Amino acid sequence: MNQFNWDQAFTLDFDLNDGLSKHAETTKRYLSQMKDMYQDQQVVEEILKNDDPLIYEFYELGCPERAGDLAFGTTMIHPGKIGNEYYMTKGHFHQIVDTAEVYYTLKGEGYMMLENLEGDWKVERMERGKALYVPRGYAHRTINTGDEILTAFYVFDANAGHDYGTIETKGYHHIVCDIDGEMKVLDNPRW
Amino acid sequence: MNQFNWDQAFTLDFDLNDGLSKHAETTKRYLSQMKDMYQDQQVVEEILKNDDPLIYEFYELGCPERAGDLAFGTTMIHPGKIGNEYYMTKGHFHQIVDTAEVYYTLKGEGYMMLENLEGDWKVERMERGKALYVPRGYAHRTINTGDEILTAFYVFDANAGHDYGTIETKGYHHIVCDIDGEMKVLDNPRW
Repeated sequence: MNQFNWDQAFTLDFDLNDGLSKHAETTKRYLSQMKDMYQDQQVVEEILKNDDPLIYEFYELGCPERAGDLAFGTTMIHPGKIGNEYYMTKGHFHQIVDTAEVYYTLKGEGYMMLENLEGDWKVERMERGKALYVPRGYAHRTINTGDEILTAFYVFDANAGHDYGTIETKGYHHIVCDIDGEMKVLDNPRW
Repeated sequence: MNQFNWDQAFTLDFDLNDGLSKHAETTKRYLSQMKDMYQDQQVVEEILKNDDPLIYEFYELGCPERAGDLAFGTTMIHPGKIGNEYYMTKGHFHQIVDTAEVYYTLKGEGYMMLENLEGDWKVERMERGKALYVPRGYAHRTINTGDEILTAFYVFDANAGHDYGTIETKGYHHIVCDIDGEMKVLDNPRW
């Protein structure tokens, strides 16, 4: 989809409360598209027998992948769990690894899981009214630990690209789970 | 000021209503710092005899000017007029001209005045909940035409740099004024 001329100024609405635009369609990620990423494969299979829940959605506005352009939009992670693991995005490195990304949380609460190629990692809290800087070199995954949709406005270099493969193959070193009603960061047993 | 380590993830609060952070200081631009930019120099002199009004402020967070980093923050343009010309930012080209910028308006209303080196220009409406794409190659100036502070969250390539000089010398081809209570775009008589 590319409804915009990125050589001309344009505006696009994103509701400050729920992040939604009335003039663009979200890209949707269902459980079936990321089923291998959750730890409890038995629960995943069980759920997929009857249902294919929407885990997250985001706007891809078709920004050309040119130096100097900036891709932007909102992302919305729905509330829920697969077993005790919170709904999350696939997460990705940028293909040009040393490119940053900025998030500004509009609603909800959760965490960003960050990890670089050397295995250095960090979780950062995301909450309404907080900007989050994802530094160069860090894969990032958004995790919704709350009861409502977690939504954030994001901006990154349009030519940064996305590398999902590295994360799909190896996962993150850590996972974020609900243990007796509390958010806990655990070692990924499948790493 | 550089209180952040840009090689590590960090968060910073920006109130979703007024754009203000409780943990950073704004850079402030007073009339005296941009007095030549307004058309009615007599009014400017008159005002500066007794006062030096705050026109706008913004957060400079000290992002290193490296490829792949992103500078971000909020900008707040106060409401008011110099003669019939609305309060506005200085406006600037990026030093690397072909770099874009994204604004997401949190409060208030106004316009972005855009102009490239070939003289192509456009005004785009800014209002709460609208993202604005400033394309590569366009100088941009934010203008507050409303009664309250106009505030927006912004992101741009940290190595883009700012070129204020080109605008300070020549101005924009057009100015935005209140004519009998209505916002009008007029030719800049001083161009």
